[in-house]
Amino acid sequence: MATSRESSAPYEIPADGAAPVRAGIPEHGRVPKYYWLKARLVPLLEELGEGGVLPTERELALRHEVSRETVRQALRELLLEGRLRRAGRGTVVAGPKLAQPLALASYTEGVRRQGRVPGRTLIGLTRHRCPAALAADLRIAEGEWVWHLERLLFADDERVGLESTYVAVERVPELERDFEADSSFYAYLREGLGIRFGAAEERLETVLATPREALLVGTPPGLPMLLIHRRSRDDEGAPLERVRLLYRGDRFSFTVRLEG
Amino acid sequence: MATSRESSAPYEIPADGAAPVRAGIPEHGRVPKYYWLKARLVPLLEELGEGGVLPTERELALRHEVSRETVRQALRELLLEGRLRRAGRGTVVAGPKLAQPLALASYTEGVRRQGRVPGRTLIGLTRHRCPAALAADLRIAEGEWVWHLERLLFADDERVGLESTYVAVERVPELERDFEADSSFYAYLREGLGIRFGAAEERLETVLATPREALLVGTPPGLPMLLIHRRSRDDEGAPLERVRLLYRGDRFSFTVRLEG
Repeated sequence: MATSRESSAPYEIPADGAAPVRAGIPEHGRVPKYYWLKARLVPLLEELGEGGVLPTERELALRHEVSRETVRQALRELLLEGRLRRAGRGTVVAGPKLAQPLALASYTEGVRRQGRVPGRTLIGLTRHRCPAALAADLRIAEGEWVWHLERLLFADDERVGLESTYVAVERVPELERDFEADSSFYAYLREGLGIRFGAAEERLETVLATPREALLVGTPPGLPMLLIHRRSRDDEGAPLERVRLLYRGDRFSFTVRLEG
Repeated sequence: MATSRESSAPYEIPADGAAPVRAGIPEHGRVPKYYWLKARLVPLLEELGEGGVLPTERELALRHEVSRETVRQALRELLLEGRLRRAGRGTVVAGPKLAQPLALASYTEGVRRQGRVPGRTLIGLTRHRCPAALAADLRIAEGEWVWHLERLLFADDERVGLESTYVAVERVPELERDFEADSSFYAYLREGLGIRFGAAEERLETVLATPREALLVGTPPGLPMLLIHRRSRDDEGAPLERVRLLYRGDRFSFTVRLEG
C-alpha cells in the first residue's frame, strides 16, 4: 500500500512563470512522484555530460528520499527517451539522437555525415513466393519470386536499426551471387545494373519493438521505434522495391526540409 | 510465483516458412506469452472490424487459458500501437492511423483530405520575454517579446495533438486582438499580414507524453508520441516561427515524397 500511495502521490513543482514551456507540468501544478524525480535528474545529466556514470538506484533513492520503485520508473522513461543508456552493469548519460535526413541518400552517408561509423551486417537473403499485397506494390504477379534482404544497421559499434528490403528476383536475378551484403544496395543497383532511383513515397510512424526485433537490435521490448515504410520507383517510374526501415526511437530522429 | 512464471514463459509459435515477414517471432521460435496472445488477437480484431467491441479481459483470459495479467499486457501494447482504443467502459477496434503529409500545408487541410473534421481549441496565447535559444532561432534579441500560441488539435471530436507556436511579437503585434484562435495561423499571416512561407526545416522524433501533455490530449501517460520541431522562414528567408507539434503516436503517421 505504502509504495502504491507514494508513487502516485501528486507532487508540487513550482511553475516558472517566465518560462514559455511548462516543462511538462500540468496547470494544476501536481505531477506523479516519478516525474518530479525525473525533472530533478535532468540537471544532473547535464552536469555529468555524455558518458557520465549515473549514481546507483540505491544512492538516488536515498539522496531524493523516494522509493527504489520511483527511481526505477524515472530511469525507465529516461532510458526509453534516449537520455540515458545502459553500459555494462551501469547507466550512463547518452549522447544526442542521430538526426538522419529523410532522403534517398543511403543510410551510410547520413550516419557518416554525423561523424559516426556506419555499418551493416546480413541477417538473411532469402527468396519467397510473393504474397498479394507485396505483389501490388512491386507490380509483379502474386506468386512470383521476390528477394527478402534483411540487414542490421550499426552506428559505430552500436546496433541501431533493422532494414528489410523486398525486390523482385527478375529485376536483380544475381543478387545472391554478386551483392556484398555489407555494402550499399543502392550503389549495387546503380553501378552493377544501371538502375537509378526516381522517387520514393515514405510513411513514418512509431511502433513498439516486437520480441524478434528487440532481440536483433538489442533493445528492451516495448521500446518505441521509428518505422519507415518506403516504396520506391526507378527513374522510368517502374516500382522497384518496398523497404521496411526500423530505427531505435531513443537513438534516431529524422529531418526534412519543406519548400513553400 | 505462478503468475510471474506464466507471463514470462517462452511460447512456441509455429513459424510460417513461406511468410517473408516472421511476424515478430525470433528465430528460436519462442515468444513471451503476452505476445503469443497478442498475435492470436490480431485475426479477431480484423474479424470484428473498426468500432467492434472486444470481449472483456475476463472472457479473453478464460478463452485463451491465460492470466488476466497476460491479457492486460497484450491489450496494453495493442492500445499503445493504436490497434485498439478505449470507448466508455469498453475497448473497441480502432480505425487506421491518420496519414498526414509532411508539408507546409496546414493541419486542417491534411485532416480534411482524409474525410475527418479538423478542429483546434485555444489553450493559451501569452507573451513572454524570449530566452536565448529561442531568440537565436527567431533571430531576435534575447529578452524581446515573443508570443506563445498553444492549441489542442482535434480530428472529428477526438483530441489528437498539441501545437505550440513561438513567434516574435514585433512580427505579429496584433495577434491577440485580430486572430481567431480556432482558425489557421498560416491563413492569418498570409491574408492578414501578407506574410508568405518560404521554407521550413523539420525534425521528427518519438517521445513519451509528459503528465501535462497526457492530461491535455487525454492519453495514457507514457504513450509514445510523434514530435515535430519546425523552424520556418518567410519567402524572403527571414526566420518566422518555431513550432512544436505533438501528435498521438497511436493515431498519426506521416508521409513524405522523396525525389531522386
